[in-house]
Amino acid sequence: MKNYIQAEQWNIIENGFDSHLNKISESIFSLGNGRMGQRANFEETYTGDTLQGNYVAGVYYPDKTRVGWWKNGYPEYFAKVLNAADWMGLELRLDGELLDLNLCKVTAFQRLLNMKEGYLERTFTAELASGKQVQVKAKRFFSIANDEVAALHYQLTPLNFSGKLDLTSFIDGDVKNQDSNYEEKFWDEVSRVQGTKGTYLTLRTKKTEFDVITGVKTLVIKNDKAVELSIDTTNLEKYLSESVSIVLTENEGIDIYKIATNLSSQNYPAADLQARAEEVVNAAVAKGFDELLKEQAAAWATKWQEGDIIIEGDVAAQQAIRFNIFQLNQTYTGKDARLNIGPKGFTGEKYGGSTYWDTEAYCIPFYLSTAPQEVSKNLLVYRYKHLEKAIENAEKLGFNKGAALYPMVTMNGEECHNEWEITFEEIHRNGAIAFAIFNYIRYTGDVAYLKEFGLEVLIGIARFWKQRVNWSADKKQYVMLGVTGPNEYENNINNNWYTNTLASWCLKYAAEAAGIVNAEDPEQYQLIVAKTSLKEATEFADWKKISENIYLPYDEERGVFLQQDGYLDKEQILVKDLPASERPLNQKWSWDRILRSCFIKQADVLQGMYFFEDDYDMDTLKRNFDFYESRTVHESSLSPCVHSILAAKLNDGDRAYEFYLRTSRLDLDDYNNDTEDGLHITSMAGTWMSIVEGFGGMRVKENTLSFNPFLPEQWTSFAFTIGFRGTQFNVKVTKDEIIINTTSKELVHINIFNKLHPVSAGETVINYKGLLV
Amino acid sequence: MKNYIQAEQWNIIENGFDSHLNKISESIFSLGNGRMGQRANFEETYTGDTLQGNYVAGVYYPDKTRVGWWKNGYPEYFAKVLNAADWMGLELRLDGELLDLNLCKVTAFQRLLNMKEGYLERTFTAELASGKQVQVKAKRFFSIANDEVAALHYQLTPLNFSGKLDLTSFIDGDVKNQDSNYEEKFWDEVSRVQGTKGTYLTLRTKKTEFDVITGVKTLVIKNDKAVELSIDTTNLEKYLSESVSIVLTENEGIDIYKIATNLSSQNYPAADLQARAEEVVNAAVAKGFDELLKEQAAAWATKWQEGDIIIEGDVAAQQAIRFNIFQLNQTYTGKDARLNIGPKGFTGEKYGGSTYWDTEAYCIPFYLSTAPQEVSKNLLVYRYKHLEKAIENAEKLGFNKGAALYPMVTMNGEECHNEWEITFEEIHRNGAIAFAIFNYIRYTGDVAYLKEFGLEVLIGIARFWKQRVNWSADKKQYVMLGVTGPNEYENNINNNWYTNTLASWCLKYAAEAAGIVNAEDPEQYQLIVAKTSLKEATEFADWKKISENIYLPYDEERGVFLQQDGYLDKEQILVKDLPASERPLNQKWSWDRILRSCFIKQADVLQGMYFFEDDYDMDTLKRNFDFYESRTVHESSLSPCVHSILAAKLNDGDRAYEFYLRTSRLDLDDYNNDTEDGLHITSMAGTWMSIVEGFGGMRVKENTLSFNPFLPEQWTSFAFTIGFRGTQFNVKVTKDEIIINTTSKELVHINIFNKLHPVSAGETVINYKGLLV
Repeated sequence: MKNYIQAEQWNIIENGFDSHLNKISESIFSLGNGRMGQRANFEETYTGDTLQGNYVAGVYYPDKTRVGWWKNGYPEYFAKVLNAADWMGLELRLDGELLDLNLCKVTAFQRLLNMKEGYLERTFTAELASGKQVQVKAKRFFSIANDEVAALHYQLTPLNFSGKLDLTSFIDGDVKNQDSNYEEKFWDEVSRVQGTKGTYLTLRTKKTEFDVITGVKTLVIKNDKAVELSIDTTNLEKYLSESVSIVLTENEGIDIYKIATNLSSQNYPAADLQARAEEVVNAAVAKGFDELLKEQAAAWATKWQEGDIIIEGDVAAQQAIRFNIFQLNQTYTGKDARLNIGPKGFTGEKYGGSTYWDTEAYCIPFYLSTAPQEVSKNLLVYRYKHLEKAIENAEKLGFNKGAALYPMVTMNGEECHNEWEITFEEIHRNGAIAFAIFNYIRYTGDVAYLKEFGLEVLIGIARFWKQRVNWSADKKQYVMLGVTGPNEYENNINNNWYTNTLASWCLKYAAEAAGIVNAEDPEQYQLIVAKTSLKEATEFADWKKISENIYLPYDEERGVFLQQDGYLDKEQILVKDLPASERPLNQKWSWDRILRSCFIKQADVLQGMYFFEDDYDMDTLKRNFDFYESRTVHESSLSPCVHSILAAKLNDGDRAYEFYLRTSRLDLDDYNNDTEDGLHITSMAGTWMSIVEGFGGMRVKENTLSFNPFLPEQWTSFAFTIGFRGTQFNVKVTKDEIIINTTSKELVHINIFNKLHPVSAGETVINYKGLLV
Repeated sequence: MKNYIQAEQWNIIENGFDSHLNKISESIFSLGNGRMGQRANFEETYTGDTLQGNYVAGVYYPDKTRVGWWKNGYPEYFAKVLNAADWMGLELRLDGELLDLNLCKVTAFQRLLNMKEGYLERTFTAELASGKQVQVKAKRFFSIANDEVAALHYQLTPLNFSGKLDLTSFIDGDVKNQDSNYEEKFWDEVSRVQGTKGTYLTLRTKKTEFDVITGVKTLVIKNDKAVELSIDTTNLEKYLSESVSIVLTENEGIDIYKIATNLSSQNYPAADLQARAEEVVNAAVAKGFDELLKEQAAAWATKWQEGDIIIEGDVAAQQAIRFNIFQLNQTYTGKDARLNIGPKGFTGEKYGGSTYWDTEAYCIPFYLSTAPQEVSKNLLVYRYKHLEKAIENAEKLGFNKGAALYPMVTMNGEECHNEWEITFEEIHRNGAIAFAIFNYIRYTGDVAYLKEFGLEVLIGIARFWKQRVNWSADKKQYVMLGVTGPNEYENNINNNWYTNTLASWCLKYAAEAAGIVNAEDPEQYQLIVAKTSLKEATEFADWKKISENIYLPYDEERGVFLQQDGYLDKEQILVKDLPASERPLNQKWSWDRILRSCFIKQADVLQGMYFFEDDYDMDTLKRNFDFYESRTVHESSLSPCVHSILAAKLNDGDRAYEFYLRTSRLDLDDYNNDTEDGLHITSMAGTWMSIVEGFGGMRVKENTLSFNPFLPEQWTSFAFTIGFRGTQFNVKVTKDEIIINTTSKELVHINIFNKLHPVSAGETVINYKGLLV
């Protein structure tokens, strides 16, 4: 755990340069706009420890799978987000001496991420070995107003000398993924164009053959006059540069601008990339850096208006939640149903940048509330587009045609992961995908989604569960053998309560959904029946029989659901009795010991009780919460939020707040010593959920917003903005009151502690403490 | 499955050259002498499909582990037997044209492995593209009389031309393991010496720094006169050669001899290797090829005298069992307790040439009966020498000091395997190691082994089981969670009956063994107590409590032991109902499907009933056999022998014979399409067990040999020779009689169908049919 980030409401600030923290800061100060992004690497040369990272959404490489021992059914490759060309490179020599912070005395260093307006600013003074001092101020951003544009303004001022600056501005595409399985480089050069319209490098990914053009125009201004750069003729592979020598005068700065684009053949015909890139760059150059930044600030203002959370009385918490919201919005904007949310977004390579069930379980609730409906819909459609591949995936494992098993990790719908206990067995992901459809419709009321896309997916998933269970002659119930639940500290277990519960629900919901579509649009329903070769009579009957007769392990004595068969055979130790020296288990214990222990990595039974909370009374919830919470080590960043929400529901505000704290500053304070690999983007949505669903107690029940708020005593108030069915609600929770501001033109009813309250345009103040019995 | 090997009693014969079969034949015709060995690669150039293999026992390389996903506790490397320098290379050019069977018309090709005398002979006539015809006869062997020597006699005769032969004789050490994880070469060159004493290449393994010298002297004889070769000056790495040009006369042959050695720094100081190699080679040269071959034949005669099996009435069966015995004796001679039996011996690289539990479960019974006592003792001592490493291995996984977990795969005592479900969980191997000590003492009566070596190992193993179980508050018994049994088609299961049974037995036997040592040699016992810090009172009490209160899953309804918790939840399908198109499962089914099915890879519950047969009555055995046999797919070569022995015990001769057939010609007929990778050496011991323990019904009970014979109706008779406590017994089983010839000077008693029979020197004939009720 670190504690070097300065707390401010709207800004993330690092003061002073510590090279040991550089890779962490490179992650924290990352920029992105849903279409492309970048770690906070330095523009100028840096020979110290760094993880260079530039990423273009949706462009991947199928890296050949590395295994110890092959198992039938493993995928042949792992699709990876690629480290792409770096557009912002500057080489700066002062009288021949390279500016490199690794070799300088650095003072007045500050990195600042302005979340309100969406830019990164870095200022420093560097003293070179020669004694020359320069001051630098560099500001850059990835435009969310025009997501094809990125821009940099780099100001350099000689403080104690006049002399020659040799400046080289370059694009470097000769990059490698750090996590490449076989040390391969993934790009080939296609073309290079340099001229008055800028510098353009087109690269093509091996195998997948995506073309990506990186274009940049560099402008150097000295004394308000443009300085012309000349094109370098180098033979360096995938590297293009232009240079100029300038005589600097003491205390007179120069301004360097780089306006850049990254365009890919996913979005344009490869043949048009050059022309289109020139257009984008030159249009942006014509606007100019300042105007672009203004547009950026305006676009971010809209984002914040849609989804800000305001916490009063705790600057660190305020900063943290804004950071999480900011990074989520940098990662995914929902414009393109081919894209999704990698666990590290544009901030690192780890986990390949691919899609996990995190999206459905954690991210969708965030985007449902804070972005236009289309955004979460696109996340669902992403899976619809992959349905065919999910069916192929199940077939590969031996399931009959029509059953869909969505991949654990994917980029284009094909499975990438290759641990048998995960790839083949962590199948609850299928359930999360079905649940997300339900959740989306519950929130938006967009029932039409079922006939458009949802039903086909639900049928494929139901068919999978139907085949995945078997009748146990011994138990006289359906059982599900050989699974891994969300708690990945158990593998290949039988009858995981969560998975069985989810499967049972999916089977029921798929049949219900079919009924809804049939009732609303019989014609469309018949098309789906034909397309999926649905045998209504037998399949619905099978689903019902299994759904109602699936085995759900339960312990009568304790009155708790059992995470899996035999869970009580384990030695029952509690987390509180674990010495601190043995935490985290995943670093201190052998895998053998972890597997045999009763300790739980992340919410498992409790994840199920969170999804289906209405099925369980408070006593049952409390018994299970107390039992499982005391055995949960929360060694996944996705775990505490569910515990936080359930604790809040159980009126245990202290614990709800404690769980919330574990993730809110996870990356800012480098809690797990792994921020340098990139940020935990998907778990950031969980933090948002802790506040809105936990402290705010927000739910949607029967088409009505509902709140059961409480205020953590460390705070004066908190407020969140959400969109619900076309209306914005700003909900502020103080010690006693809930204050609702809405854009609604009509009177709406809001449920607070199970009582309906009328809310009209403008502000409504409700004393919720008075509602508590 | 193939069927190209000619059946002969003493010879393995391939007639005609089919390049598609070449890699299979290279395996089948392999040679070895326990110290070194070689696949049946051609001496002359061959550009066709081949797997080159030369191996030196005990010399290994720690190849960096390759994993998909690292788990805490994995070993960092996998120790591998190395492909070593090839000493027998010949390049032969006839008027400039290379002799290469891949480019010739080949006629009269024969490969013949003479098992009686222990040599490989290859003859052929080749017509080169030019039309030139040559006849070749090549004979070679690895001496078991002097296991530092190998020899080749290569005769070449021009059949239809006179012309120039350019002959190059070489040692090629620039070799690579095919299964190298990172495409590395494992050898560095240390030195090269060429002169009148021969050609010597010393290589050093990377990391482990074993020096191995390969020395050879090449003699070329034409018209009874030696032809001198001149040393080539090449710059080729790890390659040494000498050459000569000879004018050949039509129909006049020349003789090429190569006498070679491989010596390693395991056995000599590195500094002495050169001198010692020169000595070995030149002494062998002085003896000459023919004399060396005579010694070889004599040494093999002794081996056959000790352990031959004669089958009358079935040449294919006769050939097969001799092949198995021959290969076992080529692989391990028991002279060196640092060596062991790799699953592929000297016939291939697969499985790294390392030690598995196969040695204890399958090979020890073979060597106990067919080799001097010292041989099996050395196999036990091998594990004693690794005790400290086994303790470290357990510590690494989190066990307290003193518990020993032997590795699943090893070369030097350290674990090499890296699949968590095997490495950490297939812990029954520990039990097999304890059982082998019991088995050795039962057979030999060498109780002193306990105090010398055995007890310490048993204490380490008992301590491991003690910690590996836990008390289940739910079951009120000790349970063992997260194991993989011998049936590797189940992973991470709870309460594997076999493992729990074995653990219970180990705990009891360790305490018994302590009592025996204490009674026989209290002083030595106290030394062991001190050395192992044994807390007698508490540890023995713990062991007893666990041994007697371990949970052994059982199904009352069927009266069978359950392979594991929840086995009956699986869909119960029988192997007979599996379509042939789905076999073998490990090729046709996904790993997911295999794991969830009830199908059993190899004897699991039945392996336990085989080990502890006296604990179960025939009805219990029959119920379990019928239940598990019908679910077993025998996709391990180690499986059928146990089923064969148990079927024989159950008087089911037909099935006993059927199981026997599955392994006896496994490699000769390339049953599983994998003989090209090397032979299944350890399973060959299982075939021997099928005959001796199965058909012969041999056991040792209370220090007495016991037989329950039956004759498969396909045979006229079978006879096996075994050594038992210093006496040789030849046991011949005919339709009605058992005929025993013994070297015993005294009258001994043999148990036949539970009745004692006096047997004296010479021949005793007993009508066993008359003994059957």
